[in-house]
Amino acid sequence: MENIVDFAGVIFENIEKTKPVVHNISNIVTANDCANITLACGGSPTMAQHPEEVDDITSACDGFVINLGNMEDSVVEAMLRAGKRNNAIGHPVILDPVGAGAAEKRNNVLFKLIDEIKFSVIRGNISEIKFLATGMSGAKGVDASEADKVTEKNIDYVADMAKNLSKKTGAVIAISGEIDIIADENRAYIIKNGCAMMSRVTGTGCMLSSVIGVFCAANKEHILEACVAAVSSYGYAGELAYKKTIENDGGTSSFRMYLIDYMSKMNWEIFKGGALIESR
Amino acid sequence: MENIVDFAGVIFENIEKTKPVVHNISNIVTANDCANITLACGGSPTMAQHPEEVDDITSACDGFVINLGNMEDSVVEAMLRAGKRNNAIGHPVILDPVGAGAAEKRNNVLFKLIDEIKFSVIRGNISEIKFLATGMSGAKGVDASEADKVTEKNIDYVADMAKNLSKKTGAVIAISGEIDIIADENRAYIIKNGCAMMSRVTGTGCMLSSVIGVFCAANKEHILEACVAAVSSYGYAGELAYKKTIENDGGTSSFRMYLIDYMSKMNWEIFKGGALIESR
Amino acid sequence: MENIVDFAGVIFENIEKTKPVVHNISNIVTANDCANITLACGGSPTMAQHPEEVDDITSACDGFVINLGNMEDSVVEAMLRAGKRNNAIGHPVILDPVGAGAAEKRNNVLFKLIDEIKFSVIRGNISEIKFLATGMSGAKGVDASEADKVTEKNIDYVADMAKNLSKKTGAVIAISGEIDIIADENRAYIIKNGCAMMSRVTGTGCMLSSVIGVFCAANKEHILEACVAAVSSYGYAGELAYKKTIENDGGTSSFRMYLIDYMSKMNWEIFKGGALIESR
Repeated sequence: MENIVDFAGVIFENIEKTKPVVHNISNIVTANDCANITLACGGSPTMAQHPEEVDDITSACDGFVINLGNMEDSVVEAMLRAGKRNNAIGHPVILDPVGAGAAEKRNNVLFKLIDEIKFSVIRGNISEIKFLATGMSGAKGVDASEADKVTEKNIDYVADMAKNLSKKTGAVIAISGEIDIIADENRAYIIKNGCAMMSRVTGTGCMLSSVIGVFCAANKEHILEACVAAVSSYGYAGELAYKKTIENDGGTSSFRMYLIDYMSKMNWEIFKGGALIESR
Repeated sequence: MENIVDFAGVIFENIEKTKPVVHNISNIVTANDCANITLACGGSPTMAQHPEEVDDITSACDGFVINLGNMEDSVVEAMLRAGKRNNAIGHPVILDPVGAGAAEKRNNVLFKLIDEIKFSVIRGNISEIKFLATGMSGAKGVDASEADKVTEKNIDYVADMAKNLSKKTGAVIAISGEIDIIADENRAYIIKNGCAMMSRVTGTGCMLSSVIGVFCAANKEHILEACVAAVSSYGYAGELAYKKTIENDGGTSSFRMYLIDYMSKMNWEIFKGGALIESR
Repeated sequence: MENIVDFAGVIFENIEKTKPVVHNISNIVTANDCANITLACGGSPTMAQHPEEVDDITSACDGFVINLGNMEDSVVEAMLRAGKRNNAIGHPVILDPVGAGAAEKRNNVLFKLIDEIKFSVIRGNISEIKFLATGMSGAKGVDASEADKVTEKNIDYVADMAKNLSKKTGAVIAISGEIDIIADENRAYIIKNGCAMMSRVTGTGCMLSSVIGVFCAANKEHILEACVAAVSSYGYAGELAYKKTIENDGGTSSFRMYLIDYMSKMNWEIFKGGALIESR
């Protein structure tokens, strides 16, 4: 537990040293947010999505994030081509399975991606991950369902589910929500950073996937630890943003700005003062 | 007049109780704004637009907003499928006829949507609505023309035009601008909330349509009243945002943030203190 | 040098008098930013991109900005049609060659645009412009490479490169970065406004191209001077925004908001107080 907070010094240092270029294929709703948070946390974004250019683009990058929000046919083709290319050259590939379980067509695309690409990390809310693990979820739309929520009572059950899904897919599983769970097949970390207002801003999940993209692209040898540092620092930035929002009598849009602001100022020193991480 | 401000207590209560999930098919310019304002005013957005998934997506939602900004062929197909599905299950469908009158292709798409889908509400600026009512408008681009503007002098004429268009389409007609007019075939409400800076931020019209989507999805039995409460509270949020912008020596981007902030804090108590509504 | 700062009075006055409508074909990452900065600096944006509607749309506008970020086939078709239409009616056309040199497919699209459309201005970072001038660049992704950077040492060399590219293309060449260079085939202006944080926000280049679109659409007879005023005032807005960001203990997202804020308040008086322009 203390170990990983201390170890995060290396994680942050590697980001600063390498300034990784991360290719994101995102969607019309949150592409701007994903690009801005990538820059904020020390990376450089590339957002190309024409199927015929992604091979070239992605080869010059250090990592790749697939966000399933946008699912038009040519974009899915670009995801598949870029994903395979990244696998071939050994770059981390992150999957954000936006809306998993919400529509049959969407599920089919999702399973095709998981079949054909080897992911380093899959990051979703509990309803999306539950759908991947069990084929069922209680969600309406893209937000997690109340019934699926991670609580102190089901935390071990969910951690086991994440470990099993990690074993099945080979990816680190990151479940974000009030309580976050990050697991590979052997270990699970529980993170209690974050605040409720994050669910009142669109793209907070998408942005977290892009943050994970930067942390992992700069730390290919430590994917699990990079994920934990990414999720915890992002959640802590949310706490700081919420505090500033209240001080300035702001609302959800101020909060969104402060969240990106705090990620743009995040470093190991700040992180150590706020990280709430347990291992199971 | 006082009646509708008092009645709005039920409108706000229903939003809080049901937290409606609203499907928006929007465009690359304002999709993020539409999703964020939907969350800000108490709804949950879903922005899917693949033609093959919208039947599933929209069935799980409580209402649907079509924004004509984006008009690529597959998106229009998605609009038509989702619109018909919503009609079949009795959910409110809102139309934002962005740029009506600006191009023949755009007009043809618009008329096809109006032919094949029954809309609960059509919300546009005066030039867009005038085009739908008369086949003519004075607009260049997506902003209302100065010549078309609603003034104290033509207010009764425009209200009659809105009533007639409502009779023809079956939809509540919402004209937004310096003076807003909301009408069904029998009644018209005049709203004098809002501020000039709203026209210096992109997407203020698109966002209003999304707000109307949330208010109507939670108040299916009171579409006219829900529209009036939506338009008036949004305009009042604009007034509060402008005040804060000036206090903080800000410009148009600060204003945009405060507008969403105030919608995220809007409730019946605040609304009662600022609503400027007359009936005709 | 003083001449152009004084002359800028006419440039700003023409924008205020004509409030030009500018058609932008942009991309899913920065379309919202481009529309908002267009409004902020006194124009009105139209963002239509269906190939079958752009002839109508663009005919009603005063200028056109092509941003190569989004490169899907139908959008490129729309760019070509709208570009030729603007050439036919004598409206300024601006090219932002986003990611020039980053992928073969992208380069092919870019060369096709330059072959078939006559541009009034081409605005890019140094790596993008170097690619256009020499067929080579050192960039990874969409950000300029450190190796290509304009410095006091290579400034004359780069100015000559820009003049030659201007001669070849007939377009004013605008290179933005820490040091900006704006050149036609005879003259070059060096601008030292701006601040480092501009490179930590996505879309600052795209937004500058949209600003140039507004300045040129209102000043068709003075394209070079309009570009210089646009680039210098935008850079100065960045300096003011950075100052306010530090005062408010903000980060990159606050900076982005203040940048647009200051452009929405920019005028000749403010400009004269901050413009740093030399001629070569």
